[in-house]
Amino acid sequence: MNRINTLREKMAGLELDGMIIENPINICYLTGIQAEGTLIITEKDNLFITDGRYIEELNNSLTIDDEILVLSIHTLEKEEYFKIFENCKKVGFEEEYITYAEYTNIIRKYRIKEAIETDGLIEKMREIKDQNEIACIEKACNITDSCFLHIIDYIRPGMSEKDIAIEMQKFIIENGADGLAFDTIVASGENSSKPHAMPTNRIIQKGDAIILDFGAKYKGYCSDMTRTIFIGETTDEEKELYEFVLNVQTRAFNKYKNNADCMEIATSVQKELYSHNFNLIHALGHGVGLEIHEKPVLSTKSNYTLKQDMVVTNEPGIYIPRKTRN
Amino acid sequence: MNRINTLREKMAGLELDGMIIENPINICYLTGIQAEGTLIITEKDNLFITDGRYIEELNNSLTIDDEILVLSIHTLEKEEYFKIFENCKKVGFEEEYITYAEYTNIIRKYRIKEAIETDGLIEKMREIKDQNEIACIEKACNITDSCFLHIIDYIRPGMSEKDIAIEMQKFIIENGADGLAFDTIVASGENSSKPHAMPTNRIIQKGDAIILDFGAKYKGYCSDMTRTIFIGETTDEEKELYEFVLNVQTRAFNKYKNNADCMEIATSVQKELYSHNFNLIHALGHGVGLEIHEKPVLSTKSNYTLKQDMVVTNEPGIYIPRKTRN
Repeated sequence: MNRINTLREKMAGLELDGMIIENPINICYLTGIQAEGTLIITEKDNLFITDGRYIEELNNSLTIDDEILVLSIHTLEKEEYFKIFENCKKVGFEEEYITYAEYTNIIRKYRIKEAIETDGLIEKMREIKDQNEIACIEKACNITDSCFLHIIDYIRPGMSEKDIAIEMQKFIIENGADGLAFDTIVASGENSSKPHAMPTNRIIQKGDAIILDFGAKYKGYCSDMTRTIFIGETTDEEKELYEFVLNVQTRAFNKYKNNADCMEIATSVQKELYSHNFNLIHALGHGVGLEIHEKPVLSTKSNYTLKQDMVVTNEPGIYIPRKTRN
Repeated sequence: MNRINTLREKMAGLELDGMIIENPINICYLTGIQAEGTLIITEKDNLFITDGRYIEELNNSLTIDDEILVLSIHTLEKEEYFKIFENCKKVGFEEEYITYAEYTNIIRKYRIKEAIETDGLIEKMREIKDQNEIACIEKACNITDSCFLHIIDYIRPGMSEKDIAIEMQKFIIENGADGLAFDTIVASGENSSKPHAMPTNRIIQKGDAIILDFGAKYKGYCSDMTRTIFIGETTDEEKELYEFVLNVQTRAFNKYKNNADCMEIATSVQKELYSHNFNLIHALGHGVGLEIHEKPVLSTKSNYTLKQDMVVTNEPGIYIPRKTRN
């Protein structure tokens, strides 16, 4: 209930009399409930409206201390929806989550008098992780670390990108993860300059650069690892470029401090890349937690400040089209 | 381009001068493009606005016959966005996909004069599958069929639900799938009455009922299989209930015909379940395609008609809480 109380304080600051929460990740974060449904906070009550699939489980798992009243969509009458926010003037909603169609629907369904955008209120709470959350992310990171050590030993010329991706996925699920944080990327040779390519049947050859981008999920929390490896010998030019990016990353890492400005860090990385005629074609980093991409964003346009106990990535990259070796 | 031409005809019917498409599944369906970005259809042009990660790949893969102009967000000036719909009065958007925040953003960014809800225009096109799509779904179904045959041979008392889920996931990715259509559900014993439970560490025991709900993805297309199995001997009551649900499903299947009314079919199933004091706690079925849940919905409240070349599930189920055997 601690997180709901924090939310209530923030709602008071925005003069909200109620809030309607549809994002299942936010609902799970606030209540621990893993079910489809709508969480409603009013001045008096916390309601969770769900359907028949979840009622039994929730009635078994929630206790009176959770202070959440579970209601079934099958028994709620039209008029009862009107009553929920009857005494609320301003009702907050998740404008970055609900669709335009859902927005028009909730206004009608609950007869909301004034629907207020909340500017990622709960997502902002999620930026700062508690010790339990950090432990889960560390565990997910340990699984990806082990997976990386395993896969660099496993990869041989003659395998396809898909073979490698399958082996990585097997390793991750067999080593304690709930599942993958996102679809595994294995991009080799000419594919390696396409930073979001799906694994193909392309056969790994000696001299290939391979980009691995993968993550595990542990108790709902994600990890995110990107590595570039080379098969066999590398050219001096490749070594030099690799060292250059690694140094850029290390210098950026040293700027990841409490109260650091995200835009400044990203801009300094972009300058370094520019000075070598490269470009920062995606954000430098992003928060990681219950979702693989969370706030804050570290980009040249992002308006965020790093804080103690945020968990963020640091992933500068350069992509050189059509550079193949023969 | 055929699908874009079909869309243009439908837009003309709605008197739309332009359309803005953000749903990546819809973009892929219309153009084959697998990249994050915005597809814009105006009276003259098809534009795809994307970022640095995808430009190279798109320039390599799209041909002049695709008639799609790729633009980069990095080079488009603010004023150029205003020009895109300059001559368009009514611009359609995907109100069931874009968030409320994205809605307010596109109105501002493109200076849209009149934004029009399109009521699932492209999703409706996707309801009817062509022969290539059906072949992909069949292939995905073949993989789940094989997985089921494999897993009923594999399951033994003493394994956990998680062990079984991992084996199923391995089988699916090793047997030609791109990946999973959705997270595999393995729910045994007392968990089997919670139809959306995640696999737990619960150990399978003799006499357990186990619900398996799983799917594969092949070339982007999903399959969706649910099966209930019993470990060891079953009671007469279990056999009777199993036969009853199977008969309900078979009778429903015989009603899956061109021009059949979805609500009527679901209502007839609900009546049969009611007559045995059970309830239809979720929809009877749903379309399957590039997404695991597509239109049409077969429920007691759904307003759809089945048509030739739709692909839909048929999944009546009964869930009996707290029925455990000793």
